[in-house]
Amino acid sequence: MSNKPTIHISEVGPRDGLQSVKATMPTADKCCWISALAVAGLREIEVGSFVPAHVLPQMADVAEVVRHAITLPGLTVMALVPNRRGAQAALAAGVHKLTLPVSASEAHSLANVRKAREQMVAELRDVIALRNERAPGVPVEVGLSTAFGCTLQGAVTEDDVIRLALACVQAGVDEVGLSDTTGMANPAQVKRLFTRLRAELGARAGAAHMHNTRGLGLANCLAAFDVGVRSFDSSLGGLGGCPYAPGASGNVVTEDLVFMFEAMGVSTGVDMSKLISAREPLNAGLPGEPVYGMTPEAGLPKGWVQAPLSV
Amino acid sequence: MSNKPTIHISEVGPRDGLQSVKATMPTADKCCWISALAVAGLREIEVGSFVPAHVLPQMADVAEVVRHAITLPGLTVMALVPNRRGAQAALAAGVHKLTLPVSASEAHSLANVRKAREQMVAELRDVIALRNERAPGVPVEVGLSTAFGCTLQGAVTEDDVIRLALACVQAGVDEVGLSDTTGMANPAQVKRLFTRLRAELGARAGAAHMHNTRGLGLANCLAAFDVGVRSFDSSLGGLGGCPYAPGASGNVVTEDLVFMFEAMGVSTGVDMSKLISAREPLNAGLPGEPVYGMTPEAGLPKGWVQAPLSV
Repeated sequence: MSNKPTIHISEVGPRDGLQSVKATMPTADKCCWISALAVAGLREIEVGSFVPAHVLPQMADVAEVVRHAITLPGLTVMALVPNRRGAQAALAAGVHKLTLPVSASEAHSLANVRKAREQMVAELRDVIALRNERAPGVPVEVGLSTAFGCTLQGAVTEDDVIRLALACVQAGVDEVGLSDTTGMANPAQVKRLFTRLRAELGARAGAAHMHNTRGLGLANCLAAFDVGVRSFDSSLGGLGGCPYAPGASGNVVTEDLVFMFEAMGVSTGVDMSKLISAREPLNAGLPGEPVYGMTPEAGLPKGWVQAPLSV
Repeated sequence: MSNKPTIHISEVGPRDGLQSVKATMPTADKCCWISALAVAGLREIEVGSFVPAHVLPQMADVAEVVRHAITLPGLTVMALVPNRRGAQAALAAGVHKLTLPVSASEAHSLANVRKAREQMVAELRDVIALRNERAPGVPVEVGLSTAFGCTLQGAVTEDDVIRLALACVQAGVDEVGLSDTTGMANPAQVKRLFTRLRAELGARAGAAHMHNTRGLGLANCLAAFDVGVRSFDSSLGGLGGCPYAPGASGNVVTEDLVFMFEAMGVSTGVDMSKLISAREPLNAGLPGEPVYGMTPEAGLPKGWVQAPLSV
């Protein structure tokens, strides 16, 4: 029996991060960065989106990136797919896991994917049918975006979020996580909504994908942890997300998230020093792009030790 | 019966912030800034330090600042004093509350105030004797610095912290808070130590003074809140503290702290919009000084409402 970490971190930088910046990271740099993330101990990485290259030119080389990533031992290689066509290409490239974005807010759904929420659930059903036929061992997860509020419609009701999560489960999805796309979540809401999600979905309740737009990213992750969530999405250097303003990063910073849990004695399986080293290929591949993270700037505290793995 | 906020925030910017920057804010600007903070609903402000002007020239006008602040209705005007002489001057100026810094780490105590911890407790005893004689209605609080770790000695034992807190209570102090001077605290440690402090000190257990050095400031405040802490220190714009690196602010940012609690439905008595406006006199009085805060940069979310006051 091998020891395993308590916390599962899904690194979203190579997808969520790279598709949010204007520059395109060269393929070789992407591969080098993903390798460094895996070496640091990250066991799941969202390596790209299977979308048409004219929509997201930064993702044009996604199949090549996947073919590199699947050679890395012990790594779950995930890709975002918006529909069946994307899923076909992703499965052909050899991904281990698919993720689809479904918006909890109708307004955001129409703006983001030009489809109503129910239409996205229908897409999901198509993708799952394809998966069942071609690659039954590949899990499909959904991240419910704008689950904590929407910049277009304002509040999103918790009933709407849970109803949509259940619709995704009925469509056959393996896991439904909740995303604070707009940085509007607060810890009380996070505790309420994840408690309800876990009660309704059981083992199919998925990850917390928090943003740091208003500085609450780690507090919201802590709140999710306190009600039993053990899977978190984050991005090295806080790359990506929806930055509203200079300095206001979007995604929770992987380095700070790992630091928080490890300092608490809760193991992530990620080595802090190697994780900080994984910023080098990111910087090299995206010269001049701002990269965030308080822990890398401050350095590790005197007497720092990693948390022991649980047996 | 008037309604009152659930959370008590002590704004430390005019003391902790202003003594950490090189520039000296002109007296008129300090007064204007303190007024704006009071208008935003802050009910306690640490307005300066009573220390010799050659040590901290930024604080040379502290008596004048106090004389302005005590004219503001409903405001508790606090000042830091390192010893009896400082306390004498502070009481003569008319402060409502005194705070003394006592280090939990012996190494930090010697480096910071050139006194061993026990000598600082003796100073505290002197200050309390003076207070009893001259101004029995003025509370004296202690902030135990480096309570969560020290950059000089590394770990600080929880037993050391509690022993020193009890020594301060025996010396007659009204309240003992815990300060994460070095940004080394984590939420699990914060819960443990404040739970113990509250068990040992009862109503004399004081505020959480957290730093954002490694991005955990709000998560640590949330952890303290979860074990019953209702008093928090913070600084407008994150001014002050021990910034280790550019962008890595020290003190928890008042704007983000108020945003977190109000978004949770937990009232602070502070008006978010007026609080953000209080950054203007800060910027005007310290031109070019970096001011932090994610919420002011991102703006308030669509549909924002303040928490109702509890009855």
